[in-house]
Amino acid sequence: MGEFDLIERYFRRPVRQAVLGIGDDCALLQPAPAHQIAVSTDMLVAGRHFLADVDPYTLGHKALAVNLSDLAACGARPMAFTLALALPQVDPLWLAPFSRGLLALADAHGCELIGGDTTQGPLTICITVIGDIPVVQGRSLALLRSGARPGDDIYVSGTLGDARLALDGSRGTLTLPAAQLAAARQRMDSPQPRVALGMALRGVASAAIDISDGLLGDLGHVLGASGVGARLDTAIALTLLRHGRDAADTDLAEAIRLTCVLAGGDDYELAFTAPSSERAAVQAAAAASATPVTRIGQIEVAPGLRLVDAQGAGVANTFRSFDHFA
Amino acid sequence: MGEFDLIERYFRRPVRQAVLGIGDDCALLQPAPAHQIAVSTDMLVAGRHFLADVDPYTLGHKALAVNLSDLAACGARPMAFTLALALPQVDPLWLAPFSRGLLALADAHGCELIGGDTTQGPLTICITVIGDIPVVQGRSLALLRSGARPGDDIYVSGTLGDARLALDGSRGTLTLPAAQLAAARQRMDSPQPRVALGMALRGVASAAIDISDGLLGDLGHVLGASGVGARLDTAIALTLLRHGRDAADTDLAEAIRLTCVLAGGDDYELAFTAPSSERAAVQAAAAASATPVTRIGQIEVAPGLRLVDAQGAGVANTFRSFDHFA
Repeated sequence: MGEFDLIERYFRRPVRQAVLGIGDDCALLQPAPAHQIAVSTDMLVAGRHFLADVDPYTLGHKALAVNLSDLAACGARPMAFTLALALPQVDPLWLAPFSRGLLALADAHGCELIGGDTTQGPLTICITVIGDIPVVQGRSLALLRSGARPGDDIYVSGTLGDARLALDGSRGTLTLPAAQLAAARQRMDSPQPRVALGMALRGVASAAIDISDGLLGDLGHVLGASGVGARLDTAIALTLLRHGRDAADTDLAEAIRLTCVLAGGDDYELAFTAPSSERAAVQAAAAASATPVTRIGQIEVAPGLRLVDAQGAGVANTFRSFDHFA
Repeated sequence: MGEFDLIERYFRRPVRQAVLGIGDDCALLQPAPAHQIAVSTDMLVAGRHFLADVDPYTLGHKALAVNLSDLAACGARPMAFTLALALPQVDPLWLAPFSRGLLALADAHGCELIGGDTTQGPLTICITVIGDIPVVQGRSLALLRSGARPGDDIYVSGTLGDARLALDGSRGTLTLPAAQLAAARQRMDSPQPRVALGMALRGVASAAIDISDGLLGDLGHVLGASGVGARLDTAIALTLLRHGRDAADTDLAEAIRLTCVLAGGDDYELAFTAPSSERAAVQAAAAASATPVTRIGQIEVAPGLRLVDAQGAGVANTFRSFDHFA
């Protein structure tokens, strides 16, 4: 049984008072007519989500970053978060840099640590973020997974695949020049949640998700929630691998680069859709948030995800996303 | 370094946009003028917070109950919660009863599961609850720890000490008749959060806290936050041990019974204060919520907590509360 089946089988219930329950990047509550609250929780377990030797400062950063990325994918403004921390022992040499990394990112996004829990146990970090989404004339500006429509453009922010390159490079399953590995590792350890872009896309994007498990898998959630299909251009996708543009990378086989981009995971970029009439607005949102975006495909009526190369010929989709219980 | 020092040292910051940050039962946000949001997070680790052989149904109940108890202590109406779950493996024989116990209590309190996370890892349960608190004419009705004033009465809801009796009985450090152990264990495994009482005490109680680490320790947080002291009647406190009223219990030494009541922990009752002018209102709140309350002492100007017996003579305070890192 996979992660999604598990949730579906044991924990899914019909939504009652919430505006939106399980299954999007955030849940939505609406305690007052003009405001919605976006809520998201992520748990990181040592040995599973982070390498044992990771620098505590970057771990603190990343633990919050992955949660802020969920708020970004909903277009929410970060307000506050809680931190639950199980620690094998109280080690100031670990706690001091961990809290500095965590709170530096929190400060950068005006997201306040408002509570939580600490206990003795195997190193585990659980963060719940809470964000604010305006409701204008009765219409929520939240970006959901379910809003993609046939004909919409598909975009990705920033670059993809470096985290996977770093993981494979660190494990030794891929040989990379030291400088390239260090750069990719920096990207894996310190993702920058696209909060400003998410907020700028309110009222512009039709659907959004953050890329944590891999582009194809996460985009698949948008397609499923929206009841549509899509076509993606692998030639454009390949340009999203930042270090794939460097001369040194031409050594990497195209299949490896494509795997990193399409199914690498741990990217924390946004994948989003917007009507083609909004192309100028998308570019304006990208400029306003100083975040590059790339158009990589189009939403189609027919279900499923079709990969095509530069010549429009089909590319077999043999890429799998990450499942914590697969 | 203890749990509170750890938080103080590494994670405490000045509060900015939140109404209330770290240090009460819940944090408070106010996204709209007439509403506050109460937020609380608890993490339960196998082997630390629950016995390995605990029934999954009761564990599901308890994991949510301890969080709802924090909302109760703020007078918040439960709205929703997130669940992060690390599991060693996907075991339907565990997950099915766990989710049933969790969701049965959620349904009983109208508290909706809106999201969360699941991952592979050592069995850990992290829940964040979100509740609603009205703001009337600019004044929040949240019950805080900081509102106790000299002369206020001190109350405790329900009964105290059974969870500690059950723990000592299960560990064999205390010998109890089987029926009594079973009854106490039921109380330890299935605490009933005092949500209705907390809501009924809005505008009546001056301060409140839920008793998770032991009455004296938790009441000490109220005294510290309010800048006051207190006098507690140990003779009345002894009557709070439910099974202490049974004939079979006269075998238990008074010191043991007093330890269970004053420093037992895991009770999830409310300790609260109210001006003596509100005695009728407190009784009305107790009646409206069908929750017995007992007046056990009084807030005083002089800092510190003084225990007195039925004759008013001092009783040495040798009781310690639970600290996860002590």
